[in-house]
Amino acid sequence: MSNNSVLILQTLLGKEITNSPSAVSNWLRPIFTLVEKGHIIAEYTVRQEMTNAAGKLHGGIIACIIDDLMGTTVFTLDRDFFMSTINLSIDYLFGGQLGDVVLAHCEITREGKNIVNVTCKLYNKATQKLIAHGTSNLVTTSTPKIM
Amino acid sequence: MSNNSVLILQTLLGKEITNSPSAVSNWLRPIFTLVEKGHIIAEYTVRQEMTNAAGKLHGGIIACIIDDLMGTTVFTLDRDFFMSTINLSIDYLFGGQLGDVVLAHCEITREGKNIVNVTCKLYNKATQKLIAHGTSNLVTTSTPKIM
Amino acid sequence: MSNNSVLILQTLLGKEITNSPSAVSNWLRPIFTLVEKGHIIAEYTVRQEMTNAAGKLHGGIIACIIDDLMGTTVFTLDRDFFMSTINLSIDYLFGGQLGDVVLAHCEITREGKNIVNVTCKLYNKATQKLIAHGTSNLVTTSTPKIM
Amino acid sequence: MSNNSVLILQTLLGKEITNSPSAVSNWLRPIFTLVEKGHIIAEYTVRQEMTNAAGKLHGGIIACIIDDLMGTTVFTLDRDFFMSTINLSIDYLFGGQLGDVVLAHCEITREGKNIVNVTCKLYNKATQKLIAHGTSNLVTTSTPKIM
Repeated sequence: MSNNSVLILQTLLGKEITNSPSAVSNWLRPIFTLVEKGHIIAEYTVRQEMTNAAGKLHGGIIACIIDDLMGTTVFTLDRDFFMSTINLSIDYLFGGQLGDVVLAHCEITREGKNIVNVTCKLYNKATQKLIAHGTSNLVTTSTPKIM
Repeated sequence: MSNNSVLILQTLLGKEITNSPSAVSNWLRPIFTLVEKGHIIAEYTVRQEMTNAAGKLHGGIIACIIDDLMGTTVFTLDRDFFMSTINLSIDYLFGGQLGDVVLAHCEITREGKNIVNVTCKLYNKATQKLIAHGTSNLVTTSTPKIM
Repeated sequence: MSNNSVLILQTLLGKEITNSPSAVSNWLRPIFTLVEKGHIIAEYTVRQEMTNAAGKLHGGIIACIIDDLMGTTVFTLDRDFFMSTINLSIDYLFGGQLGDVVLAHCEITREGKNIVNVTCKLYNKATQKLIAHGTSNLVTTSTPKIM
Repeated sequence: MSNNSVLILQTLLGKEITNSPSAVSNWLRPIFTLVEKGHIIAEYTVRQEMTNAAGKLHGGIIACIIDDLMGTTVFTLDRDFFMSTINLSIDYLFGGQLGDVVLAHCEITREGKNIVNVTCKLYNKATQKLIAHGTSNLVTTSTPKIM
């Protein structure tokens, strides 16, 4: 299913994101490989500044990727008002390394008028191992979306 | 209570962290204002690159701050092996703005030999409002800590 | 601070609950020892039917106690509409035994018009050890409360 | 894949569980419809004592069903030692009613030697709507399993 928000994001398919209104998206540099209403697949390359003291992909960056992509996935619902994250819950299953490509699948699990539930899974693209999965609930705010 | 790890971190009190072995810590630039075994208080200033599409403090950065400070707080236990994060759960209560100073209180709630439970609360320093609170469980790995 | 809902619950202080409109409350048999707006302390005795295959207090019953007491604590806000639980997150820190008395402290952490955040901590009354802590978010529904 | 624990549970397929070593299982009365290593499907009928003050399926009972079935699913791994739940995180998506049959799908998501990650989804059997989904992490203890 398509709408204005989906169409905007689809023009970015296959390109590294560097010009998002979200400064954090620009830092994470996702490449969208699929954009539908309520469903996005994106890739991220683990850079040195995303690592922890052990030189591995930092758990906080995993959380950041999940939360940011959830925001973009909720954007594909093409609603008139911003949604605000109520909570975020993540399980960490396998580690990631510098240079790894991380594949993120993000989907709307429940699309309520007031509350939206989203799930996101992160895989190692090369090994297909599940790195982490997360769920989040968002609530509609009274702040209108500009674009 | 003091130990080598606490003493190392205490030398950094009051200074912006820019030389941590964690690249993510260096990006977040915490200023530690209290360091004890199992307890750290740190401050962070919300920079433009930490904001979302609405220009507010990004939820993923909140998660990143919490996860990173939890890692540092677990470091104060002065253990011989790295600990790995099992899960992270965050509730978002109030928004943050560009330029806000965020006060983070992080504490070990349960210090098991195998599993450690940590909680972290983020406040707006000026208004004292609770921005977010999170909990995490970590497990001892077989990877020795270098320093 | 007092209101009708608080007053109703305060008449039950010190008595085992067996006549709640919540069938689950009646099964759990809490004894309220403190009831204020947004804050309840209650006690529960671990019965045989609350145990798991290892003969210990069942994690699902801990979840049930936390969720049920959160509902009662939200009731003390004396709102006109039912609130519905969005999510529940629990960390298990120590086990409980048959016959143990469990002390539950439940508090409203954030009282928004639309979203309410609640935290609950369960202690072993005799040893004061923290058994579990949980957080939950609830959303206002359009279903009017009857009493 | 089969093992002793799976074989024991498979003898119970299609029957209401009333003789489990877990007292809580006996109270919840699951009917297993599929039992494999790391994967169980079970059905539960919502009884009056499982309802909340609004007469709906109580969120605490949903948590209890999820946690209890996760324990049984971990049992199918046929390990020598009990596993202990570290945390439980649940999202509530749709309500359940008295008399509803709830279908629960529970799976091991990651089977580590020390830490096991489990997910469970609850559906309304008649409408196929997702009522709730949860994830949990468990850790191996040093308590030997008896059977």
